[in-house]
Amino acid sequence: FTRGHHSVGIVGAPFWKGQPRAGVELGPDLIRNAGLVDKLKGQGCTVKDYGNVTFEEVTNDEPINGVRRPRAVGRANEKLSNVVARVKRDGHTCVMLGGDHSLAIGSIHGHASCRGELSVLWVDAHADINTPLTSPTGNVHGQPMSYLIHELHSKIPAIADFSWITPCVWAKDLVYIGLRDVDPGEHFILKNLNIKMFSMTDVDRLGIAKVMEQTCDYLFSKGKKPIHLSYDIDALDPSVSPATGTPVRGGLTYREGIYITEVINQTGLLSAVDMVEVNPKRGSCDAEIDSTVTAAVDLLQSCFGRVREGTHPPDYQVPKP
Amino acid sequence: FTRGHHSVGIVGAPFWKGQPRAGVELGPDLIRNAGLVDKLKGQGCTVKDYGNVTFEEVTNDEPINGVRRPRAVGRANEKLSNVVARVKRDGHTCVMLGGDHSLAIGSIHGHASCRGELSVLWVDAHADINTPLTSPTGNVHGQPMSYLIHELHSKIPAIADFSWITPCVWAKDLVYIGLRDVDPGEHFILKNLNIKMFSMTDVDRLGIAKVMEQTCDYLFSKGKKPIHLSYDIDALDPSVSPATGTPVRGGLTYREGIYITEVINQTGLLSAVDMVEVNPKRGSCDAEIDSTVTAAVDLLQSCFGRVREGTHPPDYQVPKP
Amino acid sequence: FTRGHHSVGIVGAPFWKGQPRAGVELGPDLIRNAGLVDKLKGQGCTVKDYGNVTFEEVTNDEPINGVRRPRAVGRANEKLSNVVARVKRDGHTCVMLGGDHSLAIGSIHGHASCRGELSVLWVDAHADINTPLTSPTGNVHGQPMSYLIHELHSKIPAIADFSWITPCVWAKDLVYIGLRDVDPGEHFILKNLNIKMFSMTDVDRLGIAKVMEQTCDYLFSKGKKPIHLSYDIDALDPSVSPATGTPVRGGLTYREGIYITEVINQTGLLSAVDMVEVNPKRGSCDAEIDSTVTAAVDLLQSCFGRVREGTHPPDYQVPKP
Ligand SMILES: [Mn+2]
Ligand SMILES: [Mn+2]
Ligand SMILES: [Mn+2]
Ligand SMILES: [Mn+2]
Ligand SMILES: [Mn+2]
Ligand SMILES: [Mn+2]
Repeated sequence: FTRGHHSVGIVGAPFWKGQPRAGVELGPDLIRNAGLVDKLKGQGCTVKDYGNVTFEEVTNDEPINGVRRPRAVGRANEKLSNVVARVKRDGHTCVMLGGDHSLAIGSIHGHASCRGELSVLWVDAHADINTPLTSPTGNVHGQPMSYLIHELHSKIPAIADFSWITPCVWAKDLVYIGLRDVDPGEHFILKNLNIKMFSMTDVDRLGIAKVMEQTCDYLFSKGKKPIHLSYDIDALDPSVSPATGTPVRGGLTYREGIYITEVINQTGLLSAVDMVEVNPKRGSCDAEIDSTVTAAVDLLQSCFGRVREGTHPPDYQVPKP
Repeated sequence: FTRGHHSVGIVGAPFWKGQPRAGVELGPDLIRNAGLVDKLKGQGCTVKDYGNVTFEEVTNDEPINGVRRPRAVGRANEKLSNVVARVKRDGHTCVMLGGDHSLAIGSIHGHASCRGELSVLWVDAHADINTPLTSPTGNVHGQPMSYLIHELHSKIPAIADFSWITPCVWAKDLVYIGLRDVDPGEHFILKNLNIKMFSMTDVDRLGIAKVMEQTCDYLFSKGKKPIHLSYDIDALDPSVSPATGTPVRGGLTYREGIYITEVINQTGLLSAVDMVEVNPKRGSCDAEIDSTVTAAVDLLQSCFGRVREGTHPPDYQVPKP
Repeated sequence: FTRGHHSVGIVGAPFWKGQPRAGVELGPDLIRNAGLVDKLKGQGCTVKDYGNVTFEEVTNDEPINGVRRPRAVGRANEKLSNVVARVKRDGHTCVMLGGDHSLAIGSIHGHASCRGELSVLWVDAHADINTPLTSPTGNVHGQPMSYLIHELHSKIPAIADFSWITPCVWAKDLVYIGLRDVDPGEHFILKNLNIKMFSMTDVDRLGIAKVMEQTCDYLFSKGKKPIHLSYDIDALDPSVSPATGTPVRGGLTYREGIYITEVINQTGLLSAVDMVEVNPKRGSCDAEIDSTVTAAVDLLQSCFGRVREGTHPPDYQVPKP
């Protein structure tokens, strides 16, 4: 009794080394413990949980070209890429539970390795498109898109454990929603590559309904491709999802966040979702953690057919007395 | 100095047996103690408080056809129906303070018994239109509309203490706003009877201004009838009205909630209002209770002419020095 | 790397006697301590801090014509007017940090004394346009516009320490945004003088984008004049800015508040800003104070070129490996 049946493959990626704050590696199990699998099944999905990827310990991991923990991040994403590719080969819509947003490298790479050209919808307070050489921090969770965009390839310095990455997304196939904390280098890249973005100013000006209409029109005008939705929980307002590493005021409301996923579900093109940056150690109380985690679960439910007006099975009949 | 004078008759209904959570019977006196009567008088209304209806104790009240506490609920609503009919015969716009939403049975029935065909605007996270046989819980606060809709009459099993109810509302005269937690049976009914509804997805898509414009256009296209506004405080977001029995995330903002009542007041057709499901025992602190109760009072003030841009008496003059 | 360079002159006005609640005099230093100057410099502004105005102690200050503390308020504003005029003569966009909103008398007067006719955009839950004879409280922070509007001059009784004030704003050059608590005398004045206002009902109906479009169209239709933005932090919702003396539910969201300042910055006409009514003693905890103060700082940053989509220097280049 949902709009379309979904076969969902879940991959947990308990990895934090794309940023400095401990706790984000707890995200996958927290989201699972909030009932994700049962809730998706309850709305008619088939669900296969591939469990958590295990990542090797890296002991000596000094920065390279300013990039922090390059070996750990590079190898983790290489492994994740292979797992995601397997989930896609198995025929599922892939749900990657982070972990920090550096994991989008592996998730998108693995997805593209199986499905070819993708549309990427990046919902985030941040653009995460710094190159190693523009990054103010060196944290890879602020850089993943730079490694994946064809047009930026010449700007990426060599890093041994990143050498497996081949760019797989065209700038024209990327759309941002929710931006409100963008670094100068990122802004230059967005403008220079003419990347479509809806900052929070645009959301305020247009309203979320028009933003989604224009997002779909734009993506479809470039050709209908499988959609990779990369959802950073910090896209939502900190009053909704406080338990995250880099909260920024003035975010999407819970309703706007859900509306985005409802529209993407309606396209019928959703092929993979990342749900990242849930960090319970950044919540100041249980209520804050709970609010953040349940928001993540609600967003995923809406990705896979939950609609707020309700649904009923096709063969439903009201019993007569 | 309000837009139109209103004669308001207030009926308290301290009743909780349409659902399992104690505390909702405290709603009427809490709303009064927040100053409802004086505030309405202060904005130019004539107010008569009919006090609280007293409900008989029912000791043996086993479920019938799955309906919980059928005798208590049936008799309470029969009594309420008579009181509301009296308030309407006395010429007032009736304000029924709940109590749980099962009381809408008596309120709407009594209203219709005096005024005939009604338009019903149901503002709620829930559709409250399960029949006894579709209800997942058996709680009547999730069923009241099913007893009142002509088109559902054949689907309602016999329950002795409900036998006084005669359906009085046509499916075409009912509009929902705020839905976001709808059971399968309810969704089937809404679709099958082509009932007009604005789920939270619709509110997100259209915005509250267009929702109210379409609500009025729709209702007026069916003929201008007295409006019965049945307002469940859980229509508002739990951040606004947390002290309620079945809160659901992603609700109406305070401003959207108020805007609805301002537009309904402007129609000049408001004939009765239910304000239900305020439950202080579901608030986790005084601030949560206070926020919920004052929201209820503010909504009622807006129903009866309070406008946010302010007002002045027709004969007002600025004093000269 | 901002849209246009701004030269900002900051004046602190630690004054509370336009209203009865202690604490609002702490506003200027709180806003400074939250990093205002460095943040403005960091976004490319030139900033000169003129420090805090010192106000004389007034010992015997009985009400005159109902106006409370008339000598203190009159003399403080006369002094402030002179300081603001100096800041404007020095060529800066003036930022006046309150203190209570009575200070708008001196701020607008001083601004107009240097720049002549102004457009005034008043963002506030309140209209602050009571005359001494319509004011329900006698507090001058609810009256400043009445002293400044040409058309109200004949309605203002003589008060010795206010005799230096000459009206300097035409009713047609004033626009309100955010109104939701307007006294009867104020409403009469607004309607009688045909003053443009967007109450919260209007914001709900139109959305903030159309409100700002109509605000700019309206003001420009009266001739492009220097804009004086008088921003009462209580325009924002109490959930955003609780630490203020007269909070009113149902206010602007943080995003709407920021959007207003972004659009005003875009006009290129902003010539002076008041940021008033931040009162740390009205916050119930540090988080409430912090939320209010950082909102004030964020609004000021947006007044002076901060944009949420980000910016980059004109000569920016992405480094190549
Ligand atoms: Mn982010
Ligand atoms: Mn991110
Ligand atoms: Mn209800
Ligand atoms: Mn409800
Ligand atoms: Mn003010
Ligand atoms: Mn104010």
